[in-house]
Amino acid sequence: MKLDEIGTRARQAEPVLRIMETEKKNRVLKKAAENLVADAETIIAANALDMEHGKEKGMSQGLLDRLFLDKSRIEAMAEGMCQVSELDDPIGEVLGMKKRPNGLLIGQKRVPLGVVGIIYEARPNVTADAFALCFKTGNVVILKGGSDAIHSNTAIVASLRKTLKEEQVPEDALLLIEDTSRETTAQFMKMNRYVDVLIPRGGAGLIRAVVENSTIPVIETGTGNCHIYVDETADLSMAVDIILNAKTQRVGVCNACESIVVHENVREKLLPVLEERLKEKHVEMRADEKAREYMPEAEEATEEDWGKEYLDYIVSIKTVSSIDEAIAHINHYNTKHSEAIITNNYTHAQKFLDEIDAAVVYVNASTRFTDGFEFGYGAEIGISTQKLHARGPMGLLALTSIKFVVYGNGQVRS
Amino acid sequence: MKLDEIGTRARQAEPVLRIMETEKKNRVLKKAAENLVADAETIIAANALDMEHGKEKGMSQGLLDRLFLDKSRIEAMAEGMCQVSELDDPIGEVLGMKKRPNGLLIGQKRVPLGVVGIIYEARPNVTADAFALCFKTGNVVILKGGSDAIHSNTAIVASLRKTLKEEQVPEDALLLIEDTSRETTAQFMKMNRYVDVLIPRGGAGLIRAVVENSTIPVIETGTGNCHIYVDETADLSMAVDIILNAKTQRVGVCNACESIVVHENVREKLLPVLEERLKEKHVEMRADEKAREYMPEAEEATEEDWGKEYLDYIVSIKTVSSIDEAIAHINHYNTKHSEAIITNNYTHAQKFLDEIDAAVVYVNASTRFTDGFEFGYGAEIGISTQKLHARGPMGLLALTSIKFVVYGNGQVRS
Repeated sequence: MKLDEIGTRARQAEPVLRIMETEKKNRVLKKAAENLVADAETIIAANALDMEHGKEKGMSQGLLDRLFLDKSRIEAMAEGMCQVSELDDPIGEVLGMKKRPNGLLIGQKRVPLGVVGIIYEARPNVTADAFALCFKTGNVVILKGGSDAIHSNTAIVASLRKTLKEEQVPEDALLLIEDTSRETTAQFMKMNRYVDVLIPRGGAGLIRAVVENSTIPVIETGTGNCHIYVDETADLSMAVDIILNAKTQRVGVCNACESIVVHENVREKLLPVLEERLKEKHVEMRADEKAREYMPEAEEATEEDWGKEYLDYIVSIKTVSSIDEAIAHINHYNTKHSEAIITNNYTHAQKFLDEIDAAVVYVNASTRFTDGFEFGYGAEIGISTQKLHARGPMGLLALTSIKFVVYGNGQVRS
Repeated sequence: MKLDEIGTRARQAEPVLRIMETEKKNRVLKKAAENLVADAETIIAANALDMEHGKEKGMSQGLLDRLFLDKSRIEAMAEGMCQVSELDDPIGEVLGMKKRPNGLLIGQKRVPLGVVGIIYEARPNVTADAFALCFKTGNVVILKGGSDAIHSNTAIVASLRKTLKEEQVPEDALLLIEDTSRETTAQFMKMNRYVDVLIPRGGAGLIRAVVENSTIPVIETGTGNCHIYVDETADLSMAVDIILNAKTQRVGVCNACESIVVHENVREKLLPVLEERLKEKHVEMRADEKAREYMPEAEEATEEDWGKEYLDYIVSIKTVSSIDEAIAHINHYNTKHSEAIITNNYTHAQKFLDEIDAAVVYVNASTRFTDGFEFGYGAEIGISTQKLHARGPMGLLALTSIKFVVYGNGQVRS
């Protein structure tokens, strides 16, 4: 299919999706989950081709693991779709209906975005996830996955579209761009005539390319250079536990802690204990001069370290002499993702919440909670690091827009 | 000033604006309004230069009128700033603070967008308006006005910045790009490193250029091909009044009615009366075959008419044989701005509200109400016709984002 045909088909399916009843959407999602498991063999065979090519071209173990599908992973994808089917449908809710002096009743009705484009890398589970979230919110979705997962994606999409057809729902509620060439991807980003929103999911390079080239409104999901600031009045044992959790519970994720900021007055008590605990977890430390006085095994941090998202067993340690210096340092080097203060000082807690510019700001908790499931959304399409439309973990609501509905009885403007 | 310097200055002012107390912002706005009136002579002298150039290059009477400033227009700008100072400040409000099972308290705090860019044409009143709305919401604003108003804009910005300085607020809360060349404008649209949101205000060409070239997230404000559908069960006298209001109360605006859609069963009673009334207002009619049977003076409509935003004393008339046909016609030709149904049928009213895809959908009221003031926002920065972030009239809230604030007591993720 040519891109223009994909766009046209998406727009044709869109009005049907927009007004589909919740019960029907839920039924289709459950049925799609069943069929996905029933089609596991076909999907696994397709995935085996992708894995073979991946190994041939020398993909890293980490990437191969993300690409790999077996029965239990397909069951997990199906389970995710069932969970989405059980979430409340946000579409159709009317918010804030108010009466104007002239008698007009004005409210905001939640509606789908329309056609959502998603560009992602070689993670076939995103294919089912993204479909489920978009379908539940009445959106048509056009997927552009990585070339390394094309066989897996094609098989998964075939299974999902089969269910749509069986359930007499427009198959074009889900469209896959099978041509994964660079030119087609570039062209896709210019399809603002057909696509309402584009969500890139993947590494910094992919996201930058989309932001710089798309004429479609983009929801930017981004990297996380997350800090934990240990204030003068912090409960230091709590601080150590939170830092260990945020740094080591899972290192390759965007909400992991990459840098520790320490008030100079707690160095003596905090840093030796922290060094011990980080060493146990094999975390490499890169610290400034003042921190290294109490962390003899830490290497010297360079300017580059302060801005780095390691996604690895490495952490930087910066000393400050006031909360203002901590805030200025964090606002300068962070990626506006997730930031935490550990403190028992009320004024400092509120100040940090007010002055730090990030999607999520914590007092006395691990940055690892920045996640749609942990926030109680039941699902997540990504974590937005931009300020427009959605910021932070994005659940179903991030896939909706509003329209104003106005009830009158003959009002004209004077 | 070079663009990079403007961007750097904006980002330096931004953290100060972000946490400025409401009382201070209000005081500055009132003082700025006073000073603007006090500086009226200087501003009028600058405006005279723009007017002279405009006349020399043969600007239309309409554009010259939009460009023109006198004492009373400057007073109206000042009055607008005072009104904004009296609106509630949305910044700092925390919404939906909820407790998670692990004890984390998670809420959404309203924060400024950061740095807002506005690209507009030769309307100097936008300069003061945009500053007031952005300043009230703690945003730094970078303005890029049209070259035809450069002297007026420079004088207005000088007056406003003088107030900022006097009140010891960063002057760079308001920055004007004085180089109005095409190259600089193109470069400005790529400044996503410095600017959080770009709002174009002006004609279709300007908006298209911004959407196609900006790497900054854009809020698209657009054109309005607005329809009024007269259903079979409509109160026909109400229908005529609403159509006349929506078509003729002000013709050059985006929420004016451009097309009337009529159920065939009301043609006989509606159209002769409507023709009479439209003629009184000198409105040219372009109708399809079935409508012309009852509107002998209407010209024949062409395919082109259905998609046209006339912004003039012209209207098209389309006949349909069902509400489904009306909805399909409107969804095909509209610009997703404002659409109305006149009906007494409950099911049709709800169906129209559900199925029409537009920023604002009306039952039994004039489309002319699509306006920030009419919606009770007290101010307006534009009308969004996109689905991301803001849709419909945009008041102060459209100039805000949120950040999550999370209160914990030592929670770590398991």
